[in-house]
Amino acid sequence: MSLTTERGQSAQDIFYERVGADHLAPLWRHPEMNMMKEPRPRALPHLWRYETIRDTMMEAGRVVTAAEAERRVLLLVNPGLDAKAPVGSLAGGVQMVMPGEVAPAHRHTPTALRFVLESKGGAFTAVGGERAAMEEGDFIITPSGQWHDHSNEGDAPVLWLDGVDVPMVRFFEAVFADNYPEPLHPLTRDEGDALARYGNGLLPVNWKPAGHHSPLFRYPYARSREALSRLQKAEAPDACTGHKLRYINPATGGDAIPTMAAFLSLLPGGLQTARYRSTESAIYVVAEGRGRSVIGDVTLDWGPRDIFVVPSWTWASHAPQGDAVLFNYSDRAAQQKLGLWREERG
Amino acid sequence: MSLTTERGQSAQDIFYERVGADHLAPLWRHPEMNMMKEPRPRALPHLWRYETIRDTMMEAGRVVTAAEAERRVLLLVNPGLDAKAPVGSLAGGVQMVMPGEVAPAHRHTPTALRFVLESKGGAFTAVGGERAAMEEGDFIITPSGQWHDHSNEGDAPVLWLDGVDVPMVRFFEAVFADNYPEPLHPLTRDEGDALARYGNGLLPVNWKPAGHHSPLFRYPYARSREALSRLQKAEAPDACTGHKLRYINPATGGDAIPTMAAFLSLLPGGLQTARYRSTESAIYVVAEGRGRSVIGDVTLDWGPRDIFVVPSWTWASHAPQGDAVLFNYSDRAAQQKLGLWREERG
Amino acid sequence: MSLTTERGQSAQDIFYERVGADHLAPLWRHPEMNMMKEPRPRALPHLWRYETIRDTMMEAGRVVTAAEAERRVLLLVNPGLDAKAPVGSLAGGVQMVMPGEVAPAHRHTPTALRFVLESKGGAFTAVGGERAAMEEGDFIITPSGQWHDHSNEGDAPVLWLDGVDVPMVRFFEAVFADNYPEPLHPLTRDEGDALARYGNGLLPVNWKPAGHHSPLFRYPYARSREALSRLQKAEAPDACTGHKLRYINPATGGDAIPTMAAFLSLLPGGLQTARYRSTESAIYVVAEGRGRSVIGDVTLDWGPRDIFVVPSWTWASHAPQGDAVLFNYSDRAAQQKLGLWREERG
Amino acid sequence: MSLTTERGQSAQDIFYERVGADHLAPLWRHPEMNMMKEPRPRALPHLWRYETIRDTMMEAGRVVTAAEAERRVLLLVNPGLDAKAPVGSLAGGVQMVMPGEVAPAHRHTPTALRFVLESKGGAFTAVGGERAAMEEGDFIITPSGQWHDHSNEGDAPVLWLDGVDVPMVRFFEAVFADNYPEPLHPLTRDEGDALARYGNGLLPVNWKPAGHHSPLFRYPYARSREALSRLQKAEAPDACTGHKLRYINPATGGDAIPTMAAFLSLLPGGLQTARYRSTESAIYVVAEGRGRSVIGDVTLDWGPRDIFVVPSWTWASHAPQGDAVLFNYSDRAAQQKLGLWREERG
Repeated sequence: MSLTTERGQSAQDIFYERVGADHLAPLWRHPEMNMMKEPRPRALPHLWRYETIRDTMMEAGRVVTAAEAERRVLLLVNPGLDAKAPVGSLAGGVQMVMPGEVAPAHRHTPTALRFVLESKGGAFTAVGGERAAMEEGDFIITPSGQWHDHSNEGDAPVLWLDGVDVPMVRFFEAVFADNYPEPLHPLTRDEGDALARYGNGLLPVNWKPAGHHSPLFRYPYARSREALSRLQKAEAPDACTGHKLRYINPATGGDAIPTMAAFLSLLPGGLQTARYRSTESAIYVVAEGRGRSVIGDVTLDWGPRDIFVVPSWTWASHAPQGDAVLFNYSDRAAQQKLGLWREERG
Repeated sequence: MSLTTERGQSAQDIFYERVGADHLAPLWRHPEMNMMKEPRPRALPHLWRYETIRDTMMEAGRVVTAAEAERRVLLLVNPGLDAKAPVGSLAGGVQMVMPGEVAPAHRHTPTALRFVLESKGGAFTAVGGERAAMEEGDFIITPSGQWHDHSNEGDAPVLWLDGVDVPMVRFFEAVFADNYPEPLHPLTRDEGDALARYGNGLLPVNWKPAGHHSPLFRYPYARSREALSRLQKAEAPDACTGHKLRYINPATGGDAIPTMAAFLSLLPGGLQTARYRSTESAIYVVAEGRGRSVIGDVTLDWGPRDIFVVPSWTWASHAPQGDAVLFNYSDRAAQQKLGLWREERG
Repeated sequence: MSLTTERGQSAQDIFYERVGADHLAPLWRHPEMNMMKEPRPRALPHLWRYETIRDTMMEAGRVVTAAEAERRVLLLVNPGLDAKAPVGSLAGGVQMVMPGEVAPAHRHTPTALRFVLESKGGAFTAVGGERAAMEEGDFIITPSGQWHDHSNEGDAPVLWLDGVDVPMVRFFEAVFADNYPEPLHPLTRDEGDALARYGNGLLPVNWKPAGHHSPLFRYPYARSREALSRLQKAEAPDACTGHKLRYINPATGGDAIPTMAAFLSLLPGGLQTARYRSTESAIYVVAEGRGRSVIGDVTLDWGPRDIFVVPSWTWASHAPQGDAVLFNYSDRAAQQKLGLWREERG
Repeated sequence: MSLTTERGQSAQDIFYERVGADHLAPLWRHPEMNMMKEPRPRALPHLWRYETIRDTMMEAGRVVTAAEAERRVLLLVNPGLDAKAPVGSLAGGVQMVMPGEVAPAHRHTPTALRFVLESKGGAFTAVGGERAAMEEGDFIITPSGQWHDHSNEGDAPVLWLDGVDVPMVRFFEAVFADNYPEPLHPLTRDEGDALARYGNGLLPVNWKPAGHHSPLFRYPYARSREALSRLQKAEAPDACTGHKLRYINPATGGDAIPTMAAFLSLLPGGLQTARYRSTESAIYVVAEGRGRSVIGDVTLDWGPRDIFVVPSWTWASHAPQGDAVLFNYSDRAAQQKLGLWREERG
């Protein structure tokens, strides 16, 4: 197989050249198309200290006006990735709205979730004509295709973690987006309407879902935290995951968002979790407490509001100092629907 | 076709006689097997005045001991039916537990639902190791196969409406029942555990359903009523059903009980509902307010805690005096699963 | 508790009299409302010899005209039941259409299934504008609400087993029925359309289901039998049920009919099945072969086309002579949806 | 906002430099993270002539041994993409197995589908212990996690289109793969077992799914084509899509593969389809006939076995010469599960 032409090119060379011109590629020449024995994630375990994020955000507040920024978001950038994202399949960032500012109304097919990091009151997210207060620890979703905006009528900045499925929706080339002509979308229902209507174990008798997402869009921390405390009293923690709750769509029991799973877990003081890994790419934020995690071969110490990443198929274990509460979101919701999700207990 | 034998019997007579002996029956001789153009329910519209029920119950309390009665239940008997039931497919009754009494622990494949009519505090239903307070307006389920008991540690009798799917489960010849060896089943979880765990828009991450029923077993009236009030503020009432909510299983979005649907509806003062009928057989109880219903050709005036029946495929309309709240349960959950449920707006 | 009034009536007597007048009934006086430890079915194990049915049908053909009968159906009557039905929840019968006759078009909310017992060709069932040949062993459904008729263009009578959910639909008081103005409903699609469209592992891309039933309405015996033969070659039979297949709705994987499950099973020669019972009430018909069954304490010998009943929660075991094929239908589809179905292996 | 430091760097420059070092990125500096009004696919409409593919493959057969290639696959490379793939979310290629050759057994979490382009008999795909003949037009799946191999016992090469969800599974970093120690996995069931068992409108009574894919793994062209012909006779074609069938999982009614939808459509001669676009990225192959498509602003003429791409959200219309049959696969199955799929009729 080493016939050489006059011009010094081998028959293989000529062949491979022509093949490329025909927009074909021999599989055996593209080892990158081969499959690996198991995932080798490109994302690295990494932690973002909240203090750093906050200081940077405050400085950004001096350097850039809200109008210039449109939305004051600092994207989390994984050191292992080229993309401006914490993991390959999901985006993440920290967003701030200063007193009196507005993050203007728009809508898009990607869905965003918010976990409120710092709020002194007066901050709101509005979704589809209803606004909800943003209090610390609240989990809030702005579903695919729904008009939403944020505003701050209080005296102090509000900051939250943004999780967005943009990389996934972009991967499928299915992103649509629109800006609303006014800064704020009109309000058509009272605050608390969705929570009262869908969050009490009932549904309106002729209700039809407006999409794949939960009709609840705010999950108040007070209620979520109460659920965790009850679990803690009632049973022993799971050796790998502690007491872990999944945010659901109460009209289906499925994930609150079709693409991103979200969880709140309590790691009781004294627990050193057993090693665990799964194929999901996860972004964690510390809701309460301090502790240390070993993720792959990296050790990370964390405190309130710090953010860290557990990449796909990477062994992780956690040791809280005293009780700790972690929020996390991941691509597990999508992976389970597609039959891809897998976990292993060490 | 009128050949007559010597003995005076026609050939048909002889034939029909022999057929019966062979355990066969000609369809054309059994018009009762023929199908009707539309349902002609045997159950009649009927109202039970709460005062009557309560007086009777109190007298029963003098005439019969709790031990003799095992459970102090007055069954609702529809005047149109032979069975001791308010409608053909479901049973119903009013149960009372006197201070210090216990309705002892048992379990059975039929499921029961409770709507609390009168409670001064101190009354409990325990299901599967967790007990819940019974407060007025609470909706409580004791699901198929789960140990349950009732007790009254207060100073006043507690009374509630019982809805049970016994006729349905008996129709399928699938009734199993057991008594627990002790009056009360041991408690293994704190009060409020299920509501905290399953009623806040989250589910434990590895949770698996224990059956077809909701993992919530108490739906507190305060929360249900709040949901109704919010609906009332947010939108116009449906012309036929007012503001109507369905009790759901938050892990599926389906009915809280697989066989019986349950609803809470608010009829705003001034509304005269349009005529409506469906194939479900429904038992209503007045949670709040007064009003008048026309059901078929019967007019019924109702006040707090009165109970009335709307039979299958019977036109009904309602006129509250001021805002009224009605609870109702029906066989709609089963009918929808079996593809039988149908409704018509007049 | 034995106070006696002047008129000789006890206080209890007076009380119970008044209670009845108020359309109430004390649960403790109605032991029939109490629940049993386990089902005690009223239906008895029973076998109908096909020869008897056929002879009777032929005689009926002489005694009654088709017009008089409208449909020539001999109902199967369980000796343990008052109703003209083989089991409590389902009706069953054998229907015959003579050459040149028509069973005229009608529709009704109850669903019927047919298992063809005897056909020499030329017989048809039409459903919703498409007709299908009725060949021996075919399983055919006439779903809830669909116009259907039967006709016989051949030279010999066609006979089939009818299974109908009339008792169930009547229990829910949800029976609607209509006669079509003409004997036969017009045909709008070619024979075989549904089987080609829905029976080959594909579905039209924008197809929406017309109800809860399978879009397939004929399951040809040749295909079902081939499936059984393959199972027999590929694996060992189940100790209780042999090789057993369930007729499904290929658009959902659920039962072909929402209320009635239907099965075809092959009992290999030499197998003596282990004892088995479940809460379903089942009607069996012998598609091929001979054998003996012990059902409860009754022993039944069966041959081709004989029909027999296995009541709810009754131990049954079967011993075929050589390979035997049994068709059966039951209320299992409904019971599973309602969370009632239970089985036990002996 | 243009303060300049002594070293000539603006405060903004300094800020942005430091932000990057902290692994943060201001959203407002990354317009590529912004969302577009609608998808602008990177993939281009493109057609691969089968003759070119086949000639290239034959030449590859001379230049590279089967052992060197392991699998003789020519990947389809979209001119608009860097990746060796026809569209962004899915891979595609043409695979050939020469007489006497084997594509050795392996398994992987990505799922592959095959559409057989050229076969003179004797070629087989084996999946999980059962092998199936590969005949022209057959649709065959090798599901996630199942051992599979291909072999050719005939006298002529067999060629097929491969569709694989590798880019999607890789996007989620969930690829696992294994090679089997022998070239061929042992056969444990007869040929045709799955089709008989799952493809006839029945399911084994205690069957449990082994994953998210269809238990059918071969959909013979004879059956699929018959379904198309019947549709053509029975109804008018859809103005945009002609007569179009979706390959389903008969145990759920969902797509045969959880990630990739597959379709077979018949465009009747004389039809000029109306413009249509959707968010799916689709790869078409011509099963029968000739025609012309306008995709975006590109016109493509196609004949038997030619392959072409319709990118996301790109208007396409088709004009067959005489009846034509097209097979296509796309990421629609994934998009619908994730709530992303959208279509528009022109």
